[in-house]
Amino acid sequence: MAQFKFTKMHGLGNTYIYVNLFEETLQEAELASLAVQVSNVNTGIGSDGMILIGPSDKADFRMRVFNNDGSEAKNCGNGLRCVAKYVYDRGLTDKRNIQIETLGGNVEAQIHLGTDGKTESVTVDMGMPRLTKQEIPMLGNPDSKTIEETFTFHGMPFAVTAVSMGNPHAVIFVDDADAVDVERIGPVIEFDERFPERVNVEFIEVVSRNEIIFRVWERGSGITQACGTGACAAVVAGVLTEKTDCNVLVHLLGGDLQIEWREDGRIYMTGPANFICDGIFYR
Amino acid sequence: MAQFKFTKMHGLGNTYIYVNLFEETLQEAELASLAVQVSNVNTGIGSDGMILIGPSDKADFRMRVFNNDGSEAKNCGNGLRCVAKYVYDRGLTDKRNIQIETLGGNVEAQIHLGTDGKTESVTVDMGMPRLTKQEIPMLGNPDSKTIEETFTFHGMPFAVTAVSMGNPHAVIFVDDADAVDVERIGPVIEFDERFPERVNVEFIEVVSRNEIIFRVWERGSGITQACGTGACAAVVAGVLTEKTDCNVLVHLLGGDLQIEWREDGRIYMTGPANFICDGIFYR
Repeated sequence: MAQFKFTKMHGLGNTYIYVNLFEETLQEAELASLAVQVSNVNTGIGSDGMILIGPSDKADFRMRVFNNDGSEAKNCGNGLRCVAKYVYDRGLTDKRNIQIETLGGNVEAQIHLGTDGKTESVTVDMGMPRLTKQEIPMLGNPDSKTIEETFTFHGMPFAVTAVSMGNPHAVIFVDDADAVDVERIGPVIEFDERFPERVNVEFIEVVSRNEIIFRVWERGSGITQACGTGACAAVVAGVLTEKTDCNVLVHLLGGDLQIEWREDGRIYMTGPANFICDGIFYR
Repeated sequence: MAQFKFTKMHGLGNTYIYVNLFEETLQEAELASLAVQVSNVNTGIGSDGMILIGPSDKADFRMRVFNNDGSEAKNCGNGLRCVAKYVYDRGLTDKRNIQIETLGGNVEAQIHLGTDGKTESVTVDMGMPRLTKQEIPMLGNPDSKTIEETFTFHGMPFAVTAVSMGNPHAVIFVDDADAVDVERIGPVIEFDERFPERVNVEFIEVVSRNEIIFRVWERGSGITQACGTGACAAVVAGVLTEKTDCNVLVHLLGGDLQIEWREDGRIYMTGPANFICDGIFYR
């Protein structure tokens, strides 16, 4: 019976099946179908996809992310934290600043240790935000930014700040994040004609200049436990609208992320990563 | 770190985390919360619940079924096939007629071997059908049966045959099972006032006297891949209305079951069971 070893990990409930290519060999032609197979909760293990950890010519390790529909993703912030924890805690490296090659380029991950000498949290470089309508993308003057611009959705006015973190986000500040009917208004904004590639929608309640409550409607996924790029976009919007400082604790449904927009213009995300189980999968 | 060994198995996509109590010890007080934890696809393994396989005073083995909400179930037909495969293929018994104690009483499971000497399919005694309105339960004359009785749901007439297999089923024969809008009409029938404890709803297309196509709306779960008691109820209804013989191949979304209503009045269900993975879960 064909079989291979796997590890299931999650970062704020964003969960993948990790395969260590230093000890397992998978064929390129089967990766898409394997990702679909292991992700199915009824007949496979159950996950948001499959992530391969292997050697790299350009970095310390290479990470490949396959979604649960078999498509390959450029990157995954929650997955990066798990890869960093995996390679450090399992002794594949003793570095605590780890370069990881992704389809979207090299990314640095920094390990923070707990008192047990294991990875407690990981900081990941999420890159620079982009703000012009052309970059989001949004309809309108291509060089203008969208900062607290009022749009009407579903007959109600919303002040939208638009941020791209490689994917488009519409950030909306509200008085009470839990009072928002995300399931009802989220898809209306996602599919609004002003966003030609659709949009992720974040509803943000400001607790203080260093703490926000975050609720998200993800493009193509709906309400999710956590969205790393969305948390970054929310803090960028908070700074641009002078509601928050540059270093903010973000409370998501799945847990907390610390987001920092540093002097170098880049966003750094710090959060947890967890081992769920190790096992042998029978194909 | 507290951890325990598990096996994930499925029968027609009905999937549980199996724990072998001959090699692992779990505390009674933690079983409900563990079932919830392992079943969560985001932060646990992902399943419909947890099944414990252990020793019995009254049978060869004892099986305890915990739903993914932590409640304990009386029994589970798909789970019984997996337990039988587990104890035989893993060498816990060399019997091929295995008595299994459940919260709903003892059940016999019969192993059928493939050419590899492993369990290919399992036959499980699903008990006797009950037919009176009192036994379903349904409103109306308590001693009368409901056989192709025409009811109006959502303004449309449906000929219903009601069967209890320990849980209530409303079986409706149709010309084309795939043409039924199960998601729309299913909940209307489930919550109809004539069924005081609600009802599972089956739409059955007769291919021949020995073959039917089966679509189900499960009480409390909606559309599912498979429903073992529903497949039994469908064949009972087929025999009572003279549409099928007593031994019928049932095509469900998740795969096939062979259902036989034998001379002894009991229903026997034969179907597959599959290993998905073995692993160590970190609590």
